[in-house]
Amino acid sequence: MQIIKESLGSNTAAYLQGYLREKDPDNPDHVYPAMIVVPGGSYTHIPEQQAETLAMAFANMGYQAFYLRYSFVDEKQPLHPAPLIELAKSMSLLRQNASEWLIDPERIAIAGFSVGGHIAALYNDYWHSQWLTKQAAVTADEIQPQAILLGYPVISPKLGFPVKEGMLAQWTDDPDTIAADEHVNNQNAPTFIWATTDDPLVPSANSLAYANALGQAKIPFELHLFRHGPHGLALANHLTAWKRDANQPHVAHWLKLAEEWLNATL
Amino acid sequence: MQIIKESLGSNTAAYLQGYLREKDPDNPDHVYPAMIVVPGGSYTHIPEQQAETLAMAFANMGYQAFYLRYSFVDEKQPLHPAPLIELAKSMSLLRQNASEWLIDPERIAIAGFSVGGHIAALYNDYWHSQWLTKQAAVTADEIQPQAILLGYPVISPKLGFPVKEGMLAQWTDDPDTIAADEHVNNQNAPTFIWATTDDPLVPSANSLAYANALGQAKIPFELHLFRHGPHGLALANHLTAWKRDANQPHVAHWLKLAEEWLNATL
Repeated sequence: MQIIKESLGSNTAAYLQGYLREKDPDNPDHVYPAMIVVPGGSYTHIPEQQAETLAMAFANMGYQAFYLRYSFVDEKQPLHPAPLIELAKSMSLLRQNASEWLIDPERIAIAGFSVGGHIAALYNDYWHSQWLTKQAAVTADEIQPQAILLGYPVISPKLGFPVKEGMLAQWTDDPDTIAADEHVNNQNAPTFIWATTDDPLVPSANSLAYANALGQAKIPFELHLFRHGPHGLALANHLTAWKRDANQPHVAHWLKLAEEWLNATL
Repeated sequence: MQIIKESLGSNTAAYLQGYLREKDPDNPDHVYPAMIVVPGGSYTHIPEQQAETLAMAFANMGYQAFYLRYSFVDEKQPLHPAPLIELAKSMSLLRQNASEWLIDPERIAIAGFSVGGHIAALYNDYWHSQWLTKQAAVTADEIQPQAILLGYPVISPKLGFPVKEGMLAQWTDDPDTIAADEHVNNQNAPTFIWATTDDPLVPSANSLAYANALGQAKIPFELHLFRHGPHGLALANHLTAWKRDANQPHVAHWLKLAEEWLNATL
């Protein structure tokens, strides 16, 4: 494995970190699907070790795995749509470097968690939009996602997070544009969503609202809402548990369910 | 194990069939939780072998297991609320015979599938209602469920099943009263729901509507919507598959997820 780090522009702290299997001399033509993890962190930071652990979980399934360190609210206000543009540039990088990075360009997925799920859900809605491709200086074909995973996602500021109005003003000056459930359309990719129903920070009504919207748009989806668990569970096992209640063996089934769903979808 | 069959009245074909562990002389005080399976069959019949297989799956988890053969539309029209009264009588029988049948009366759950899920979801809404306890000649305490499982349930006739108006007229002359999502209240039991998002017969919007209602009423719930599978999967394995596409290993995870949820809930 090699670990790479690609800057997403000279005027930004955003970067893409990759965990890449290297060419096997016995099987030099082998390519792998790719996964970009978009971590959470309330748009103020990302937990880099957790992001790496999540990327490694997908690497362990056979993905060329990445995580995105997007811009934060103390670097740009209002923040949106900068994270979407950074994700678009990342997708383009994967397809431009597909040959060198041993990536199958027809099997590229995105897994977003918490506000990273907000980025991924909005990207799912908007990836083909002209304003986005123009600002990212890419083509829609370069940046199309084949599957989207959302873990305990923020979907809409109208559904209970953020609570503080000041925080939302840092995100956008037009909240309707970042209500991801309201912009689902027939170009959304198949989507897998999981959360806990008693999440005390981001209500699971966010996940239900996006699932409802996908269902109405006839986009294939899968939804797993587990009965209990705090916000931010990541793998929900001892590797990512930052406190005792964050080690939830029942919830940890999400990873196997997601793997099987990805195998059927990509 | 002994197999018992209890009639639910002299003027009805409805009965309760039980699969009961017998008293262990080495541990004579041991009692078990109980599960009543309410099978599907469009209110015209029940698949008895599938109902038995489902009951045996719960027996294998340590439940004193039953299935309910409720009344059908060719026996009574409009059919409702007869199945709810038969389920109430069944619950009362379990508590009245708890000692003989080695049942812990504080841990009795119901698992309904398809229209059996409709019966279970409505029962979840109405078990404490005076009209029901009066017609069943029971007390609410006798018939309270501690947990409800719903597999690919019909929830409301407004959500895509039945398609034919004539069928609905056989069910009820007041469709609003059998729209289960519209009658969720703060007395509903914790509820586990699973379905497949592309169910071609009973749209998964039924499951989403009930989950939305439970969430709004702050009833603990768990929801698993799998990406693919025909209607009526039961165990989703070779035991209950009536055609090749009904053997779905991914969907078959519902049983383990339900077992873990029951262990945490009961």
